[in-house]
Amino acid sequence: MSLRKIKLTIIYDGYDYHGWQIQPGKKTIQGELENALRNLTDRKITVHGASRTDAGVSALGQAGLIQVDLPIPTQNFPRALTDKLPPDIAVTAAQEVSNDFDLFSAESKTYRYTIYTGKKRPVLYRRHCWHLPAQLDAPAMEKAAELLKGKKDFKSFASAADKRNDTVRTIFRCDLSVEDDWLYIYVQGDGFLYNMVRNIVGTLTEVGVGRIKPDKIAGIIRAKDRRAAGHLAPPQGLCLMEIRY
Amino acid sequence: MSLRKIKLTIIYDGYDYHGWQIQPGKKTIQGELENALRNLTDRKITVHGASRTDAGVSALGQAGLIQVDLPIPTQNFPRALTDKLPPDIAVTAAQEVSNDFDLFSAESKTYRYTIYTGKKRPVLYRRHCWHLPAQLDAPAMEKAAELLKGKKDFKSFASAADKRNDTVRTIFRCDLSVEDDWLYIYVQGDGFLYNMVRNIVGTLTEVGVGRIKPDKIAGIIRAKDRRAAGHLAPPQGLCLMEIRY
Repeated sequence: MSLRKIKLTIIYDGYDYHGWQIQPGKKTIQGELENALRNLTDRKITVHGASRTDAGVSALGQAGLIQVDLPIPTQNFPRALTDKLPPDIAVTAAQEVSNDFDLFSAESKTYRYTIYTGKKRPVLYRRHCWHLPAQLDAPAMEKAAELLKGKKDFKSFASAADKRNDTVRTIFRCDLSVEDDWLYIYVQGDGFLYNMVRNIVGTLTEVGVGRIKPDKIAGIIRAKDRRAAGHLAPPQGLCLMEIRY
Repeated sequence: MSLRKIKLTIIYDGYDYHGWQIQPGKKTIQGELENALRNLTDRKITVHGASRTDAGVSALGQAGLIQVDLPIPTQNFPRALTDKLPPDIAVTAAQEVSNDFDLFSAESKTYRYTIYTGKKRPVLYRRHCWHLPAQLDAPAMEKAAELLKGKKDFKSFASAADKRNDTVRTIFRCDLSVEDDWLYIYVQGDGFLYNMVRNIVGTLTEVGVGRIKPDKIAGIIRAKDRRAAGHLAPPQGLCLMEIRY
């Protein structure tokens, strides 16, 4: 068998996991996928992930890449792997890609962040939302979101732990959708710095409660200083929705 | 202080619990509520529940009753208790009731059962739905549901573990609501036998896949035999929505 590269589409409830990346002694998404692959193929196969989602972050469109030289047809991987995975992870698609396919050259990634603004504790949804019982000014947040779009230096929205020098990214989409007490923030970009989406969400909610005026966004970006932006939003509201190549 | 009876409205994600009722060494809703009351008041106070929901069953409208002779204002209980409860349980309302209030004489109880019929594993919602990836014939299910309404002997829908002699109950409402791949079954009645709602749902899904014809419902009821009805639907799709007095 010749070596094939297969791109997997992976979905998961990340609430009970220590994030994507394998860590010794901890339950991780990558670890569970590699266990499932070992069960299926009796080999050690590494799954590379397009995004290293943090502990508590979920995904409905993560991309993973494996290399195999086994006689399993590509289209059989989703079902065969899902059967071996715990109920909070599934592989929903598999596609053979060319040898020069680069998992880290996505055209765009889309995230959704979910906020519940009602008073009652969202007992059924607490694993996938940020409970922020406040009156949020959605039009002000939309104005601020609009100002984040475009090609900019997002250093102010990157965690200090992000040591990359190039902090310029392009945001294609940054908007809100409100349904009753639920507020969804969608952010699509060509790539994101560490904690960037959660820092954007934290900043937008501070606009929502009136602590930051929307017209301060340009100044926050110009500052290139993490302290200029708002708080980091908690992980469980974040969901990686789609990665396009 | 004179003794007061207080009715509490309680909501919970029951997925991680061994049901409502206290059992030694197991995590239960009643147990967590009594722990919270002990933390708050420094006393052992029993919480009676209107419905003994099973392991895995959730609630957005459970009713509980406590008796207290403490100087805590009734309206303070929801917040004070919720602060001491784990994040998957909350008390959303408290109301003083008369001394002759009977928790077990509800006018009606309403349950919702959630079914996901899509193919992909519902990773974000698996704790609160039954994943049944099948084409369900909703009009046939509606016809069958309609035939379950009214005052009838529901012995065929009771678990053999239910030893009550009086198996006559009145169902006020039994209908479906479909949204994309989600199917919700609502059942409202003056009371339910053990497993009755889950047996109704199991039977309706067998109508949905064509194994039981809707016009067989009358015969199933007449049989007064558990074996005449369909399978028991799994617990995690069930949610106690409202109890009216």
